Amino acid sequence: MSQEINKKKNFNIFKSHMRGFMSYSTERSATIKSVKIGLVYRIAQILLLSYIVGWELMHNKGYQEFDTVSSVVTTKVKGQGFLANNLTIETNLKEKSNEYFENLFSLKSNVEYHMLDTADYVIPPNEYNSVFIMSNFLKTKQTQDRCPEESTKYKAICQNDSDCENLGSAANSWNGIPTGKCIRKDNKTNIKIFSWCPVEDENDRNEDQLIRNVLNFTIFIKNDIEFKKFKKKLRNVLPYHTNSYLQTCTYHEEYDPHCPIFQLNYILSLAEPDIKEKYLMMIKGGVILIEILWNCDFDFTTKCLPKYSFRRFDTKETNTASGFNFRFANRYRQNNIEVRELYKAFGLRFIINVSGLAGKFSIVPLMITIGAGIGLMSISVIVADCVLLHCTKKKRLYQEIKELDVNSVLEKNFSNSVRL
Amino acid sequence: MSQEINKKKNFNIFKSHMRGFMSYSTERSATIKSVKIGLVYRIAQILLLSYIVGWELMHNKGYQEFDTVSSVVTTKVKGQGFLANNLTIETNLKEKSNEYFENLFSLKSNVEYHMLDTADYVIPPNEYNSVFIMSNFLKTKQTQDRCPEESTKYKAICQNDSDCENLGSAANSWNGIPTGKCIRKDNKTNIKIFSWCPVEDENDRNEDQLIRNVLNFTIFIKNDIEFKKFKKKLRNVLPYHTNSYLQTCTYHEEYDPHCPIFQLNYILSLAEPDIKEKYLMMIKGGVILIEILWNCDFDFTTKCLPKYSFRRFDTKETNTASGFNFRFANRYRQNNIEVRELYKAFGLRFIINVSGLAGKFSIVPLMITIGAGIGLMSISVIVADCVLLHCTKKKRLYQEIKELDVNSVLEKNFSNSVRL
Amino acid sequence: MSQEINKKKNFNIFKSHMRGFMSYSTERSATIKSVKIGLVYRIAQILLLSYIVGWELMHNKGYQEFDTVSSVVTTKVKGQGFLANNLTIETNLKEKSNEYFENLFSLKSNVEYHMLDTADYVIPPNEYNSVFIMSNFLKTKQTQDRCPEESTKYKAICQNDSDCENLGSAANSWNGIPTGKCIRKDNKTNIKIFSWCPVEDENDRNEDQLIRNVLNFTIFIKNDIEFKKFKKKLRNVLPYHTNSYLQTCTYHEEYDPHCPIFQLNYILSLAEPDIKEKYLMMIKGGVILIEILWNCDFDFTTKCLPKYSFRRFDTKETNTASGFNFRFANRYRQNNIEVRELYKAFGLRFIINVSGLAGKFSIVPLMITIGAGIGLMSISVIVADCVLLHCTKKKRLYQEIKELDVNSVLEKNFSNSVRL
Repeated sequence: MSQEINKKKNFNIFKSHMRGFMSYSTERSATIKSVKIGLVYRIAQILLLSYIVGWELMHNKGYQEFDTVSSVVTTKVKGQGFLANNLTIETNLKEKSNEYFENLFSLKSNVEYHMLDTADYVIPPNEYNSVFIMSNFLKTKQTQDRCPEESTKYKAICQNDSDCENLGSAANSWNGIPTGKCIRKDNKTNIKIFSWCPVEDENDRNEDQLIRNVLNFTIFIKNDIEFKKFKKKLRNVLPYHTNSYLQTCTYHEEYDPHCPIFQLNYILSLAEPDIKEKYLMMIKGGVILIEILWNCDFDFTTKCLPKYSFRRFDTKETNTASGFNFRFANRYRQNNIEVRELYKAFGLRFIINVSGLAGKFSIVPLMITIGAGIGLMSISVIVADCVLLHCTKKKRLYQEIKELDVNSVLEKNFSNSVRL
Repeated sequence: MSQEINKKKNFNIFKSHMRGFMSYSTERSATIKSVKIGLVYRIAQILLLSYIVGWELMHNKGYQEFDTVSSVVTTKVKGQGFLANNLTIETNLKEKSNEYFENLFSLKSNVEYHMLDTADYVIPPNEYNSVFIMSNFLKTKQTQDRCPEESTKYKAICQNDSDCENLGSAANSWNGIPTGKCIRKDNKTNIKIFSWCPVEDENDRNEDQLIRNVLNFTIFIKNDIEFKKFKKKLRNVLPYHTNSYLQTCTYHEEYDPHCPIFQLNYILSLAEPDIKEKYLMMIKGGVILIEILWNCDFDFTTKCLPKYSFRRFDTKETNTASGFNFRFANRYRQNNIEVRELYKAFGLRFIINVSGLAGKFSIVPLMITIGAGIGLMSISVIVADCVLLHCTKKKRLYQEIKELDVNSVLEKNFSNSVRL
Repeated sequence: MSQEINKKKNFNIFKSHMRGFMSYSTERSATIKSVKIGLVYRIAQILLLSYIVGWELMHNKGYQEFDTVSSVVTTKVKGQGFLANNLTIETNLKEKSNEYFENLFSLKSNVEYHMLDTADYVIPPNEYNSVFIMSNFLKTKQTQDRCPEESTKYKAICQNDSDCENLGSAANSWNGIPTGKCIRKDNKTNIKIFSWCPVEDENDRNEDQLIRNVLNFTIFIKNDIEFKKFKKKLRNVLPYHTNSYLQTCTYHEEYDPHCPIFQLNYILSLAEPDIKEKYLMMIKGGVILIEILWNCDFDFTTKCLPKYSFRRFDTKETNTASGFNFRFANRYRQNNIEVRELYKAFGLRFIINVSGLAGKFSIVPLMITIGAGIGLMSISVIVADCVLLHCTKKKRLYQEIKELDVNSVLEKNFSNSVRL
């Protein structure tokens, strides 16, 4: 008997919990038909809603999640360069006219005496994300010896041996190690150094070896990318790029923006619009950034095409930072002595930077934007309530209808006000 | 006297502000016990709550902030390769059977005549993020001279000297610079070029130098990473990797997934499951991406292990883009003439890409998710209110209880309705 | 007539829709002046508000959007190194004192016999994001031949020819290919290999070539970065860095933190504070990460300066992973035989990592933070309601005032309660 009573008790308790669970509390509101407050409320709503939908969702793609690109790049340079008439490239280059440079780089009446192909001017022959094409060089044949330092080096000129002591850090940028002796070089007396001799003479312009035809070289850039989150793989060599197309096409911003073969003259013009500066880059070197940008929206299409842009990175402003060069050496043995040909290589360092952003619809960012948006919409209620209670004629009435002062109710008869 | 009155006034004003500050306005609601509306409301709540907790928080780790990896990679290749019997590698390789290739690459009855170690086949000897292992090469000994261009070059074949003019951009992909003369080469007449001579003959398969044993080489990859935000440093050479372990272990996906030493045959099989294609890669070269993925969850453990994957990047589809090669030269002086040995190096370019994502609990993303989630939950109220006012039998009653029409109140007696 | 009635009907419908649109429903609330509940409510509000404003907005910059850096780096090394007296670097280096090393590296009474400049010790001469400076090397002159393997190689020592079979993978890390014969080397008998001979002898310390003065070398790092989203370009060579400044300045953490020229001794001391370890790095090589960090806040200023930090990456803990070396070769022809000088190059591999984060005010993250913050603030209402209905003496009264039980209303007279 008691078991049945207990069961019935538990069932009743369960039923009342279920009733509580299956109930719904809705807020009680007061509806005010007033053009003034209605306008304030609706305008605030429309402003917030258009911001949320128009800016956050549509413009900023708040309904998408994003992924960045993972990329592999390989390059291949084609073109033959050659050395011509022994040139004297003058020193005050910045004052020369455009015609001087066009003449300097023209291929008329050249007597070629040395040809250079990729195995000669691409140094190192194989690099990742980057390629250096030598366009000019200074060559000096050297052996280990003692010889005078170059006059232009800081504190290299001396009167007698005592000037060779206490050089401190001055000798850090010299060609070799000071020996403490002062010797004659041409009509000056310089400090004798232990070094590869003779030292490189940067002012001996007769030895400049400007490589002709570099502007006609081409770079073939192959770029494979992947957006991991979306499992999408793309490449810049498109399916319709047949062998014959690739053998003849050349990249052009408007006419052929997807050909992956870039002619140096064209991309240098894009990176450096000033013609004289472009030619100076061939003589002094330069750093060019080639950017491959993949901005994809996978909600509308599975295709995506890259966009190429070219920017010069070495500054033209100060002396220090313009141009690009480095030194390397070819080594031989002559009569069992180690001989090296030191090259000061000026050229174009191309750095290839691949970046990109892909967006695709995803429920989480959409819901976060909607949830935060709902939070924002309550600002319109806050604003309308503020106007209602402070800026209307009937504000006292509204306040009495809206806010029930519980303490005043308690002061009155309890049972009278119980239904409020 | 007036001071005391002022003080009392200010104190009263302060007291009333404090009273206002210490008050709390709670919304007045109407509780409806209806199974229909209760169900709609609770089901909407449960759906939204399970989405927020189950998907946003748990699955998408909405309570974590994330950090990307900063990494340093060094590589070391080990293995001896050698050249054997002068091979003739035939040209129609794609039609050959697997057995042809296994024979070609077998090490039986080889007469080695030249050994190559890392200083010979890793070019350049030291690179960051990348390593090239030469597996096949074409060697041509050359000096600067004038000689016939190769027959297969576009427009290289001529009948007489006039064919050598107006070549336009056709000569861009030649080996050298056209001289304007037509000369005999074998039984053809080709345009004479100024170039490194003789030109490389890509069809002279007798000169192919397939390097044996490359598949047995190993790459030791050392990878140190850091998640800056979380100040966590990790490396792929684990503490229990002793010297003796590292001398004998080899990476295997299942049996030894953390050994940082990779045998080329194994990782090539993973990147290129087709056996014939794998052998073709040894002959024509290939680009392999080695990915080291660090996905870490620092809420449960401070440890994190990397995952390696291997992918072939050069396509097999078109002729243009398959394989990988570049040219370099060793230079000598013979009788004071510059001689170079031009190598067309085919091989495996490995690119090492390190990426990763680490998550760790953080209060801000958790609070943003919760805050936006609370905004989302109000959708269940909107839905239930809609059902209440439009889809129930008693909707008119509910509307009258829920919404007090202020204008109707004003039309009635002011004082009668003042307590509503 | 009916048209006018229809028009009037439509206009009335339109007017009622407009009236509905121009109305505003405000919630009806009950205001309770109770210190207890007021305190709970206000404290909860203040806590949530200070978290949202203080932590999410101010500390975590929740009002900013962020961008990562896109960067280009070029390096230039300066300095002369030289080889001195034939050194014997002893093998048990870790047990030597600091004085031993200072003596070893001192420049007193050196007889230089070979100078090295950047074309000699920077290998490869030109790299992107990275630079290797050789500090010590082992040189072996070799030709292709058959000779005994080195005794320390695994299983290289033999008694008779039968030991040379079945070596399995043991020979993978040898210098050459086993020939199957056992021959005498010094007073041992080793397996004869086909290789570049004689093999490199890592224990022949007489051949170590420690390059002097490496610690005085300098690296000039030029770094150009861009924050694409904000269209800001910055460089580490600042406008006030004149030519003369750059010729003499040296980076120092406190005294000159923006000079882009780094002296090796100083940055090695920062990366490796232990003096003995620093010297060991010159002998055995090391991997140093140079980090350039650009953290910018573009809300307050358009300027932004980089911060440099230096970290050693190769571990000191285990034998395996410390130091850094690789092998390269210079090739000659003597009497028409190919001769190579194999270098085992120990040195400092510097890896330059540029990273950064820029923040700038943006309306979207601010609105998301505010929207989610508004959602969070409702927690204070939930808490106060809970206290109100469960933890006060007058909870029954509050419940009756707050929640109108609709079903009880329905059970009473309909018309009596209609205005609630």
